[in-house]
Amino acid sequence: MKRIPVMEVFGPTIQGEGMVIGQKTMFVRTGGCDYRCSWCDSSFTWDGTGKSTLLSAADIVSQLKEIGGDRFSHVTISGGNPAIHQGIGELVSMLKERGIKTAVETQGSIWQDWMQDVDDVTISPKPPSSKMETDFEKLDTYIERLKDYNSSLKVVIFNEEDLQYAEKVHKRYPEVPMYLQVGNDEVDTVENDSLLSRLLERYEWLIDKAVESPELNDVKVLPQLHTLVWGNKRGV
Amino acid sequence: MKRIPVMEVFGPTIQGEGMVIGQKTMFVRTGGCDYRCSWCDSSFTWDGTGKSTLLSAADIVSQLKEIGGDRFSHVTISGGNPAIHQGIGELVSMLKERGIKTAVETQGSIWQDWMQDVDDVTISPKPPSSKMETDFEKLDTYIERLKDYNSSLKVVIFNEEDLQYAEKVHKRYPEVPMYLQVGNDEVDTVENDSLLSRLLERYEWLIDKAVESPELNDVKVLPQLHTLVWGNKRGV
Ligand code: SF4
Ligand code: SF4
Repeated sequence: MKRIPVMEVFGPTIQGEGMVIGQKTMFVRTGGCDYRCSWCDSSFTWDGTGKSTLLSAADIVSQLKEIGGDRFSHVTISGGNPAIHQGIGELVSMLKERGIKTAVETQGSIWQDWMQDVDDVTISPKPPSSKMETDFEKLDTYIERLKDYNSSLKVVIFNEEDLQYAEKVHKRYPEVPMYLQVGNDEVDTVENDSLLSRLLERYEWLIDKAVESPELNDVKVLPQLHTLVWGNKRGV
Repeated sequence: MKRIPVMEVFGPTIQGEGMVIGQKTMFVRTGGCDYRCSWCDSSFTWDGTGKSTLLSAADIVSQLKEIGGDRFSHVTISGGNPAIHQGIGELVSMLKERGIKTAVETQGSIWQDWMQDVDDVTISPKPPSSKMETDFEKLDTYIERLKDYNSSLKVVIFNEEDLQYAEKVHKRYPEVPMYLQVGNDEVDTVENDSLLSRLLERYEWLIDKAVESPELNDVKVLPQLHTLVWGNKRGV
């Protein structure tokens, strides 16, 4: 039994982004990441400013029940990069046994066999603005292993260079559903009104860019709904 | 060859709501509806204030190409109620032959066999606030005929009574993906800032309601993205 460092358990709320956008869900946020994205909006999971607790899968299921009661049937495991934790396999199985679906998001840098048991897998390779490098051969294997499962690609876009990166990713994996997401470049602001107009402006920019590009015909362009509603507040 | 009354063809833009939210798509809006919802946001399709042109499927494909060029691979057929037009079957086939996917939205009051050829079918029965009555036996047949196809249910919510209606619909068809959408009760305002804060406030209310209800665990709660970005402007 491998214990999992958990930063926070909260919900039910809605999933604000990606392939199951809008889904009523609980969140389990795990600590630790093998990346250091320049614009990481959950850097407290790896930069030492947050505190995690080592929990067993059974402990996490208990916490979920305690907080969410009978008001959930879907759990999103986020991070950090949840894929660094082998123990999540047990959590996913325990939830499945109880009829609860799961979703996970990872950059696709580390494989775990339990990925294939997750209902909705979002693979989010990081564009140039993150200052990270994508190992495309590793990503090929990842995508290949998930090709018969319900997975999608999501790229967060801050600028033109990121957009070109997204085109390249989409071209390399044309069969995988592709999501473009507006980057939030003000992850620390508490000025919700100005953040909102900034995000909607950036979203419109991203829509325009996707609309112009014949390389991006079969994409979905989305904002982060939770940020539109709650700003940068955590745990909602 | 049955011609189709078309009110507008526009795009590419993004689908702002429902099961393919965010999808880059062209829109074909057809005229006419068998309903008269109190809060209809496209009443110009049936109240005589808009003008339609009778077009063949081939004409529509030409218009789509003319306006969208090579920048689309998805077409959304909206209304009004597109299901009143038999001729749409030919349009859907012609698009499919060209590798273009289609989506349609209908309240589920009138069946057409071409529904089964559409890639994404949204069935949106109307809640009490619309002042329309749902014929649930008719809806049963509709859902039954689409059960092996990619369809979803969407209910627009304005108040508590609508929410109870949505719970009833979800309970009746638990296998069908269920979307709750925030109603826009200011379809005529041009005050975009106040509309935006009103819609986000209503969206938060709807999230809270869904979160509270154990009957609504497996739902997706969504706003209309195009209204957040562009207000009540048409043709974007
Ligand atoms: S991969 Fe995700 S969690 Fe890790 S640093 Fe990048 S944005 Fe943050
Ligand atoms: S069914 Fe749709 S188009 Fe027809 S009146 Fe109602 S909202 Fe308007």
